[in-house]
Amino acid sequence: MEEHKRVVIVGGGFGGLAAAKALAGSTADVVLIDRSNHHLFQPLLYQVATAALSPADIAAATRSLFGKSSNVTVVMDEVTGVDTARKRVNAAQSGAIPYDYLILATGADYSFFGHDEWADHAPVLKTLDDALRIRARLLAAFEEAERSDEDEEIQRLLTFVVVGAGPTGVEMAGAIAELARTALAGAFRRVTSQQVRILLVEAGKTVLSAFRPEQSSQALHALRTLGVQVLLDQAVERIDESGIVIGGKRIASANVIWCAGTQARPAGAWLHAETARNKAVLVAPDCSIPGHPDVFAIGDVASHRTADGTVLPGLAPVAKQQGRYVAKLILARLAGRSAPAAFHYRNWGTMAVIGRSRAVADFGWLRLGGHMAWLTWSLVHLLLLVDHRSRLSVHLNWTWAWFTNRRAARLLTHWPGQPPRRIGGKPGSSRHNDTQHSRI
Amino acid sequence: MEEHKRVVIVGGGFGGLAAAKALAGSTADVVLIDRSNHHLFQPLLYQVATAALSPADIAAATRSLFGKSSNVTVVMDEVTGVDTARKRVNAAQSGAIPYDYLILATGADYSFFGHDEWADHAPVLKTLDDALRIRARLLAAFEEAERSDEDEEIQRLLTFVVVGAGPTGVEMAGAIAELARTALAGAFRRVTSQQVRILLVEAGKTVLSAFRPEQSSQALHALRTLGVQVLLDQAVERIDESGIVIGGKRIASANVIWCAGTQARPAGAWLHAETARNKAVLVAPDCSIPGHPDVFAIGDVASHRTADGTVLPGLAPVAKQQGRYVAKLILARLAGRSAPAAFHYRNWGTMAVIGRSRAVADFGWLRLGGHMAWLTWSLVHLLLLVDHRSRLSVHLNWTWAWFTNRRAARLLTHWPGQPPRRIGGKPGSSRHNDTQHSRI
Repeated sequence: MEEHKRVVIVGGGFGGLAAAKALAGSTADVVLIDRSNHHLFQPLLYQVATAALSPADIAAATRSLFGKSSNVTVVMDEVTGVDTARKRVNAAQSGAIPYDYLILATGADYSFFGHDEWADHAPVLKTLDDALRIRARLLAAFEEAERSDEDEEIQRLLTFVVVGAGPTGVEMAGAIAELARTALAGAFRRVTSQQVRILLVEAGKTVLSAFRPEQSSQALHALRTLGVQVLLDQAVERIDESGIVIGGKRIASANVIWCAGTQARPAGAWLHAETARNKAVLVAPDCSIPGHPDVFAIGDVASHRTADGTVLPGLAPVAKQQGRYVAKLILARLAGRSAPAAFHYRNWGTMAVIGRSRAVADFGWLRLGGHMAWLTWSLVHLLLLVDHRSRLSVHLNWTWAWFTNRRAARLLTHWPGQPPRRIGGKPGSSRHNDTQHSRI
Repeated sequence: MEEHKRVVIVGGGFGGLAAAKALAGSTADVVLIDRSNHHLFQPLLYQVATAALSPADIAAATRSLFGKSSNVTVVMDEVTGVDTARKRVNAAQSGAIPYDYLILATGADYSFFGHDEWADHAPVLKTLDDALRIRARLLAAFEEAERSDEDEEIQRLLTFVVVGAGPTGVEMAGAIAELARTALAGAFRRVTSQQVRILLVEAGKTVLSAFRPEQSSQALHALRTLGVQVLLDQAVERIDESGIVIGGKRIASANVIWCAGTQARPAGAWLHAETARNKAVLVAPDCSIPGHPDVFAIGDVASHRTADGTVLPGLAPVAKQQGRYVAKLILARLAGRSAPAAFHYRNWGTMAVIGRSRAVADFGWLRLGGHMAWLTWSLVHLLLLVDHRSRLSVHLNWTWAWFTNRRAARLLTHWPGQPPRRIGGKPGSSRHNDTQHSRI
């Protein structure tokens, strides 16, 4: 009788999930460990942050995806280290979990380039809770501005600064512009869309630098059409409770959102392995870690250099393809067959969406801009969503938003009451004067 | 030219919203103040807490409901008092807001009968954030039980105690039973539905005491069929971090949910008005407050005694009908017409649902139980939902859950990491022993 080898997968993102799915139903005993209970379709997370979609539209309980695969066990726990000598993963609650093969798919986190104190004032967009917090901040800013009588304070509340013009930053800035200009504007009596100011700050010389130049400029044009002020070649000098400093100039803002640099999670340190500058583990062509043929790193936690010398980008398709590749490789080894050749990334294209109906897409053989790219983007994302129910619900929400300009998920939850954020204003000032309230 | 009189409405629940809608488009200048930004369809809140629905399915941004009614201004703020002499409402952020007519619709809150220390260990179900916290607790309990090796700890985690067998408590207990027995059971490898224990604790002699005896016993039977242990005539003596004490007996539980007594919010104290035992303001037959003909109280914050001496129950239909009645009365006064007769509550019936396909309904002329009542309940609630988009989305979610036994919203958000809740277990005990992990 064949012995059941155990494959432990750390991380239930695109890479880990793809590996677990490819191993489901096999003879391997698979343990998938993630610190959250759900798989998140991260490319649409900005739509939760801007109230267009609900969390359940873009996330699915990881467990429910493997209900019928009895060889896959899902454990919600946080991995704290790896003991390669004894072949064990250490988890905070479950303790030591032995493995025969280990797949590290822990992903990346945002990095504040050594300025961790900025994190308190500039939320990132990585988890559902992050998105709900950003949503609460955005919606609360409009509510506070509606109540305020001080022009300076209103300006601070309605100034939104997105740092980083990669796909997430571009999509976020576009979505805030849509939210302000269409969905929210009509519902307020005092706040007008003319008061809203959206800045996109980028240290590099262009937006979407991973795309071709013609698409970068299309995106730039689309952002400007939506009213987003794009500041290129500008490094952030400081972020604090009252705003942001760029190029020596302070911009008062209650809503700075960090979509800039990322850094791999600490799998490299667990293994004492060699890492790239962004802490990603340098991997061999077969995604294994040099010196540890049974340990693999995939997705954003891995730094994979291809034969032509370029490093694979931190994109969902890379992680998914690596997950499937490593699963196949392990199954081959378990069956005593020869392993497949080195991992080869097949680039199906890259896309980013700007606002309600514009996008850029690059499929190599086909490059699209404007509405066609947006339609394509919508279709591809609907097809990629992890379960059918999400597809229906996202479709419903998008269609609804499209026809009505309303947002279904404009709910202020995750908001700790009325925060003492009146930094610009004077508390207890003349707010009790009746004449000031003649406007409401 | 007619002078625009201002009607201030405090509270955007069923009562306040009905009043504002009835006043929308009139000559009155309406200000609707609520401390949250959304109207909540509270009768379905337990379905958010049990992962069947998403927050956006049962809530709508209050602002968006009045986008086209230019005479209605929505203010998100917390009212702290009323100055009846100067005819002003005081709000925490906006300061003094003058009124000509005032409608208090602030609702009720849960009351722990003088044991406020229980609140830390027994969440209530009143707001969206409450529901999301309860959902996180329920889902985390299953995840922790799946990881645990200690029988006692597993039992504590999988014991769910609902306190109070009114409609909310009955619906909550039924929904947890469904969640445990169908939606969750298949997805776990170690936790089985046989390990789950659900208790419904009631101080009175029957469940659903506001219903007729035959329906109470139908509900009791339905709960028992679902595996809920119903403990009647049992007062809670203590609730703490390790569980609950009932009848001198301690029951270890990580999930106590409070659905028992309610108490009106402090509008009575603002007015120095006479209140009932539950702090609700005693109102005149026209919903006004004795001595203050321009101030009205409706819904749960009002204690309205009818001509036959009974006090109207704290139900959504009462609040809605009172809201519309008071709006009509104010419009009549503004137009110089005679005001309508005393408020008369028209009882269209009461309903409660137990689990996946059972309910009880009492329409006076028709009483239903079992599946027919459930179908009726579903239909009525879909029709009552405040906007069409919610209807579609709720329908989609219900249909999905019905056919697949899965829950769309099984997402652990609102969860502060891995909490130190291992009160029963011994931390650092033999959890690092490999043999214990042979089960995963």
